[in-house]
Amino acid sequence: MSHQPVLIAGAWRTANARDAFRAENPATSETLPHEFLVSAWADCDAALNAAVEAAAPLRAAPPQQIEQFLNRYAERLDARKTELVETAHAETALPKTPRLADVELPRTTNQLRQAAAAALEGSWALPTIDTKLNIRSWLAPLGPVLVFGPNNFPFAYNGVAGGDFASAIAAGNPVIAKAHPCHPRTTELLAQEAFAALDESGLPTATVQMIYHVAPEDGLKLAADPRLGAIGFTGSRAAGLKLKAAADAVGKPVYLEMSSLNPVLILPGALAERGAKIVEDFTGSCLLASGQFCTSPGLTILFASNEAEHFIADIKKKLESAAPAALLSAGVARNLAASVNTLRAAGAELVTGGEFAAPASSPAGSGGVSPREAVSSEEPCGETPREPAAGTAAPHANRFANTLLRVSGEKFLAAPEKLQTEAFGNATLVVVARDAGEVEKILTQLDGNLTGSIYSDTGGADEALYAQLAPLLQWRVGRFLNDKMPTGVAVTAAMNHGGPFPATGHPGFTAVGIPAALRRFAMLQCFDNVRPHRLPAALRNKNPNGKMWRLIDGAWSQKDVQD
Amino acid sequence: MSHQPVLIAGAWRTANARDAFRAENPATSETLPHEFLVSAWADCDAALNAAVEAAAPLRAAPPQQIEQFLNRYAERLDARKTELVETAHAETALPKTPRLADVELPRTTNQLRQAAAAALEGSWALPTIDTKLNIRSWLAPLGPVLVFGPNNFPFAYNGVAGGDFASAIAAGNPVIAKAHPCHPRTTELLAQEAFAALDESGLPTATVQMIYHVAPEDGLKLAADPRLGAIGFTGSRAAGLKLKAAADAVGKPVYLEMSSLNPVLILPGALAERGAKIVEDFTGSCLLASGQFCTSPGLTILFASNEAEHFIADIKKKLESAAPAALLSAGVARNLAASVNTLRAAGAELVTGGEFAAPASSPAGSGGVSPREAVSSEEPCGETPREPAAGTAAPHANRFANTLLRVSGEKFLAAPEKLQTEAFGNATLVVVARDAGEVEKILTQLDGNLTGSIYSDTGGADEALYAQLAPLLQWRVGRFLNDKMPTGVAVTAAMNHGGPFPATGHPGFTAVGIPAALRRFAMLQCFDNVRPHRLPAALRNKNPNGKMWRLIDGAWSQKDVQD
Repeated sequence: MSHQPVLIAGAWRTANARDAFRAENPATSETLPHEFLVSAWADCDAALNAAVEAAAPLRAAPPQQIEQFLNRYAERLDARKTELVETAHAETALPKTPRLADVELPRTTNQLRQAAAAALEGSWALPTIDTKLNIRSWLAPLGPVLVFGPNNFPFAYNGVAGGDFASAIAAGNPVIAKAHPCHPRTTELLAQEAFAALDESGLPTATVQMIYHVAPEDGLKLAADPRLGAIGFTGSRAAGLKLKAAADAVGKPVYLEMSSLNPVLILPGALAERGAKIVEDFTGSCLLASGQFCTSPGLTILFASNEAEHFIADIKKKLESAAPAALLSAGVARNLAASVNTLRAAGAELVTGGEFAAPASSPAGSGGVSPREAVSSEEPCGETPREPAAGTAAPHANRFANTLLRVSGEKFLAAPEKLQTEAFGNATLVVVARDAGEVEKILTQLDGNLTGSIYSDTGGADEALYAQLAPLLQWRVGRFLNDKMPTGVAVTAAMNHGGPFPATGHPGFTAVGIPAALRRFAMLQCFDNVRPHRLPAALRNKNPNGKMWRLIDGAWSQKDVQD
Repeated sequence: MSHQPVLIAGAWRTANARDAFRAENPATSETLPHEFLVSAWADCDAALNAAVEAAAPLRAAPPQQIEQFLNRYAERLDARKTELVETAHAETALPKTPRLADVELPRTTNQLRQAAAAALEGSWALPTIDTKLNIRSWLAPLGPVLVFGPNNFPFAYNGVAGGDFASAIAAGNPVIAKAHPCHPRTTELLAQEAFAALDESGLPTATVQMIYHVAPEDGLKLAADPRLGAIGFTGSRAAGLKLKAAADAVGKPVYLEMSSLNPVLILPGALAERGAKIVEDFTGSCLLASGQFCTSPGLTILFASNEAEHFIADIKKKLESAAPAALLSAGVARNLAASVNTLRAAGAELVTGGEFAAPASSPAGSGGVSPREAVSSEEPCGETPREPAAGTAAPHANRFANTLLRVSGEKFLAAPEKLQTEAFGNATLVVVARDAGEVEKILTQLDGNLTGSIYSDTGGADEALYAQLAPLLQWRVGRFLNDKMPTGVAVTAAMNHGGPFPATGHPGFTAVGIPAALRRFAMLQCFDNVRPHRLPAALRNKNPNGKMWRLIDGAWSQKDVQD
């Protein structure tokens, strides 16, 4: 059997293999036709050397070339949309429409185009000029970036097409992409288009490299390699922490998006005012992509009351009426089951679900849930499954019943660590607290999270409670929301898809949102008394494009510096 | 004997002691009168709790209060200048004038005042507003910051008064300062003024805390404490790496300034054109504060030639004619001797110096060196000793002969790691390379550094060599200079006092330069759909002071957002 080639050093070639693997269709458990190789260290080594060699010309490349590459790449993805969507659907069971075709792929090409515009315009680098002392600085490329994509976004976070990729390239760095082994063929197709677009733009051919899989020890060896400039990772906390330790030991910046419960605090006034609407929002958000979102609401805090009991009963009903969708893999389902067991062992009580499920005979999502409504008008990072999963013949190991757990505030406070176990998938925990004092204690125990939401009465009845509790939540999260579920992640300059440890590895950076996401893959570079013709264009007196924002003697300006 | 009190939880109190210590006058080896305590963990624990408690009101404090504190603190330091300078002189042997009184203390108060202005104005936080989606973000305080000051700047990098301190406070965080045990009394006096200024500004009394010393294991325990928001450290690579490992393991941002050789590449045309001038610059820079600068030029690369031999001979003469000054401590001298031995064992040849020296009977600096000329008109971070060290009676263990070593390019390339051993103090290594190819190889072997300089002919004779070699150097350093020694570190917005590992722990940040230095001690905080009256002032539609620069829908502006 022939194997799919890897992209190394400007050429598609057969991997130096340790092993071979094939992907599986999660909806049918069928093994998919293409065979891929687990690269041996020789491939990693070759990719690192080629990336180092590409880094120098890439640093010197005009921004127009980087822009052209990213835009051509986006155009090529649009042109190959049907095949990409079919392939990703087969490898992930995520619905072709709206999710893959209408939301995730457009988001991906939009990210590439925003990154292209940012690379061309250059303001992301915060060029700073002190004219009196002739000291000038900017954020400059820092060298090859290794990107690990996750299982849950085959396009938008893919190592060879997603946000980390677009940011690293736009900042002027070569990328070595490590595909997620659950969707290797999707990644191969993306890399084919990237490689063709590279050729069209004239960038170094090793600007983009891609391998499908490596042994865990080679992954850690890669992360600790001195030839790298930085690492981008989206995935599980366990894998992220290992990579972090490897990279930290050699002083490599490593940007990790690891885990998040995305706590939602619903104040009594909000529940009284619009409980039914919040039930809709909440259930829709929970079931988006079967809960396989980094921003899925995993922990909701309510004040004990009759309304809270009604709320829980309504959610139970909604969850039970929605057919569980296929999860991304049997591994995801197993981890989900294990997490639910951990939560139960720590004192959480099962309200519904909690076990593996047979595939639905009717289309998933045909229950009472209308998750589309849960998505705001801003561009979300995904939508809920709409179409039936393929292959409903046999029961599969990767469906889990929609699951709701509950626990009292008192019990939560007795085991706050265990009860913050992430249950990645369609399971969520509600904490019912006695009073504001108990909520205060609960919030104080929360780990760092990507997001935190507070729902409050629109008339002001919750204002005092909000004032008491909001500060405790907002300093533990990267994005703080009012009256809104966290699953919509808009690709905008003001977005923060980041947060305090262990949600990420550094609270100062975001993985989504341009231009800020580019600044992760950069080093601060200062030019002191450097002769004018030797400066990078962004730091010369003349504004290189008339549009670049530069901090000149303390004021942001798009003007030239006067000679 | 009574002990000097520590500043914890808003009060001066006796330390929970593990041990006691006194500082030494490095010029005389006399033990100084005050006795200090090594704090036990109970002090660290109390300081952490108090800092956490102070963090919340500090986050809510109006910027005017932070500005007032920092400005009042600066005024108070000015008012107590004589005593501060006397005390620091006794504890460090750094000359009272110009170094301590005319350069370092003014730099310190200037930093505090610049930080005050930045806190008031608020642009440092990069407030970013997306009006269409109502998503708004900024860099917000991230919690208590632990600051470790180094031995070589008793004021400007002091944990309770220096750049890290000013940045952390201006960004809205409480500081726990760990004094450097070589200058505890100086630190106590500074902390007294900080505490008085706190009281005048109305900030929480535990905004500033200070302990003198801790056991190494308690230092690591502190760095790994979840109550901290971040850590700032300036000091040795060995200590820095240990703190980094402790902080990394719990995901705490840690900003380290650890070590740097500050390579200087002198191209042949420059040597031919103005060799004598470069000898002056170089020797002055090397001997500034007896080489005890993080930006001291420790590694110079020359092309083999008669001019290079003359250059080395001239430097030798200059170094021999300058009396060695007292180093900061006997430990510094011992480390210096050990580093020189390591360099020699790795193949470097001693040109002059290389051994402990008796104190000069004539004023230090009275030789041929005129280091003041080496300092540019910008504010330098220090000056060379000018006045005679006190107490010249007996030979001391903390004077080391001004030392020059040389090595061929070939030998350097045979042991590049050993030959990059930092010799902190008055020793420097010259590498004589055969040709440009060899220089290329040498540059490729360089570790990350704070600075790198290239001297070239002003007529353009070196232009081709520069084009070949500059890219190899500039990407390995945080600040890249032309025709200038690295020892002057201007406190300006465009400065980078940072660089790739192992010079620091993260290449994206600077320890000097406002506003950028503040951004180390911040978390990215996003407000999504948050009701207007609940937003921080910086993110409301109305620009809070009419001067704050905000990125509104992609353009930097000082205007209000239209309601």
